[in-house]
Amino acid sequence: MRTLKDVTSMGLKVQGGKLYALDQTLLPHEEKWLESATPDDMIEMIKMLRVRGAPLIGVAAAMALAQFARQSTNADQVQNVAKKLREARPTAVNLMAAMDRMMAVVLDSAGSAPLAEKLMDKAEEIFQEDVQLCEDMAMHGESLIRDGDRILTHCNTGGLATVGRGTALGVIAKAHEDGKRIHVYVDETRPLLQGARLTAWELSKLKIPYTLICDNMAASLMAIGKIDRAFVGSDRIARNGDAANKIGTYGVAVMAKFHHVPFYVVAPYTTIDPQCPNGEKIPIEERDPNEVRAGKAPMDAQVFNPAFDVTPANLITAIVTDKGIFEGGKLENI
Amino acid sequence: MRTLKDVTSMGLKVQGGKLYALDQTLLPHEEKWLESATPDDMIEMIKMLRVRGAPLIGVAAAMALAQFARQSTNADQVQNVAKKLREARPTAVNLMAAMDRMMAVVLDSAGSAPLAEKLMDKAEEIFQEDVQLCEDMAMHGESLIRDGDRILTHCNTGGLATVGRGTALGVIAKAHEDGKRIHVYVDETRPLLQGARLTAWELSKLKIPYTLICDNMAASLMAIGKIDRAFVGSDRIARNGDAANKIGTYGVAVMAKFHHVPFYVVAPYTTIDPQCPNGEKIPIEERDPNEVRAGKAPMDAQVFNPAFDVTPANLITAIVTDKGIFEGGKLENI
Repeated sequence: MRTLKDVTSMGLKVQGGKLYALDQTLLPHEEKWLESATPDDMIEMIKMLRVRGAPLIGVAAAMALAQFARQSTNADQVQNVAKKLREARPTAVNLMAAMDRMMAVVLDSAGSAPLAEKLMDKAEEIFQEDVQLCEDMAMHGESLIRDGDRILTHCNTGGLATVGRGTALGVIAKAHEDGKRIHVYVDETRPLLQGARLTAWELSKLKIPYTLICDNMAASLMAIGKIDRAFVGSDRIARNGDAANKIGTYGVAVMAKFHHVPFYVVAPYTTIDPQCPNGEKIPIEERDPNEVRAGKAPMDAQVFNPAFDVTPANLITAIVTDKGIFEGGKLENI
Repeated sequence: MRTLKDVTSMGLKVQGGKLYALDQTLLPHEEKWLESATPDDMIEMIKMLRVRGAPLIGVAAAMALAQFARQSTNADQVQNVAKKLREARPTAVNLMAAMDRMMAVVLDSAGSAPLAEKLMDKAEEIFQEDVQLCEDMAMHGESLIRDGDRILTHCNTGGLATVGRGTALGVIAKAHEDGKRIHVYVDETRPLLQGARLTAWELSKLKIPYTLICDNMAASLMAIGKIDRAFVGSDRIARNGDAANKIGTYGVAVMAKFHHVPFYVVAPYTTIDPQCPNGEKIPIEERDPNEVRAGKAPMDAQVFNPAFDVTPANLITAIVTDKGIFEGGKLENI
């Protein structure tokens, strides 16, 4: 039986038929690739945010499932594993969407022999599609950036969050590539510092000028007119245009509204959840209090640690998808 | 010659004539008192935030100057040292106000013998006054808190920030003491985590229920109606009611405005700068980029690290001082 084809991206790759993920918790100081030999490996990596970013975890889970199917062509087993992968994290709908697409293959192929090959085909298709989705978002979104813009971003939405060039950060990178002189202000993004660790690292590699700030400094920058627009990603967008994203995004959106700064969400169609009527219905993951305590607070400090928040559509200037630029309320036409 | 009288507070004390400060950078995990044997010791402690909190640094500098005067009754030397202490940090006007009061003693006493004693008297007066100012602010501010309130606070404004019970946190503690059932949401306050380290520690000691959050989570709590009011301190209040405070405060104020949450600033008259017409004239200290990088970001990441921001008077519901509760615009009558 064939193996998964070699593919590579910033945070996920297949090499000699083996699946590897870059341990993003160790960035930027260490670049360590870990093999995902079993679905349990991948589930651990997703839960621990070694593999993170809504599009990336969808692709990574698909690859892990295809990998598993090579060892077990028992459709029930494959379904059970898909279910476990699907539940690794609750908010990013890309994970559920990818697993549903993989499951559709299982159901279509009931009883037929080359299930594993079909699943590998589908996982590879999802991988390549994600690369293209990033290109398409970048092409559309880039038109929103002007020469000289100072852009605020939150969390990490680049090559590490997808298997392509990214969502919001892909748009920003495209504008830079096209010769627009931009400066990026990077929210560090507490508690896990995806901005300070990952976005700063990516921007350094891309040679895009940036300034790192604590999340609580963005408001000051807006007050003194130093932010021209804000670009963020999303983990799930409801039918009405409400968007869940990394905790802190809602605050950025309110600040942007107050200071008349355009606020854009960039996400592929795989992030849109047509089953979800509005933001209130998006499940928000609460994570370990120690992420917030970080060894600094009293060890028994009670903590509230939601991983995401929801920005209502009315605070979003536009949503940039692979299909074009949409006002929130018009998403249903996609 | 007499020595400084023994006094004690949460973060500053005189014992056997020696001046000590609690190293607040080590809290909550280690409670270590450091002797300030010379003004340079105190300047280092203020610059490094071992001694911090606008009222506290004013009192601490006064004590350090009085201590120095015991060794040198040369008025010029005392003036030079006062000037150095005065410049240890630029934003909190309490420091300048305390040094100006000490200098007035020097000028009044020119040539007279017991300069050191007069300076010790004045420093002790400033210490005792600060204790009383805290009581008065607590008494006035407490009336703004209702039974059942869920209160957001930022940075540390308690016994560690003053030599009394605190400013904003003193008000909160008084409400608790008076039997109001309150819950405090504590912004961790990046980059130096005064909320996570100091406010959480104080609230634990006071047995006041609290929940620690990252700064970027407060907006979400307001959105779901979990914050009834916000109380913060200040490092300098301009004549028009604009208030400088720990970075992130302005963001809290904008959030509060957007969500119709009352936003109160609590500060003693020593924090009001009648020479300063408005917030634009308040000097904002920028600190070491490594405070933000915190060993996590790329080591060469460009950083913006202002220690304070300015909240305009129109976002402040009221300013609570030792004299009473004032709307921002009415401060000039104090």
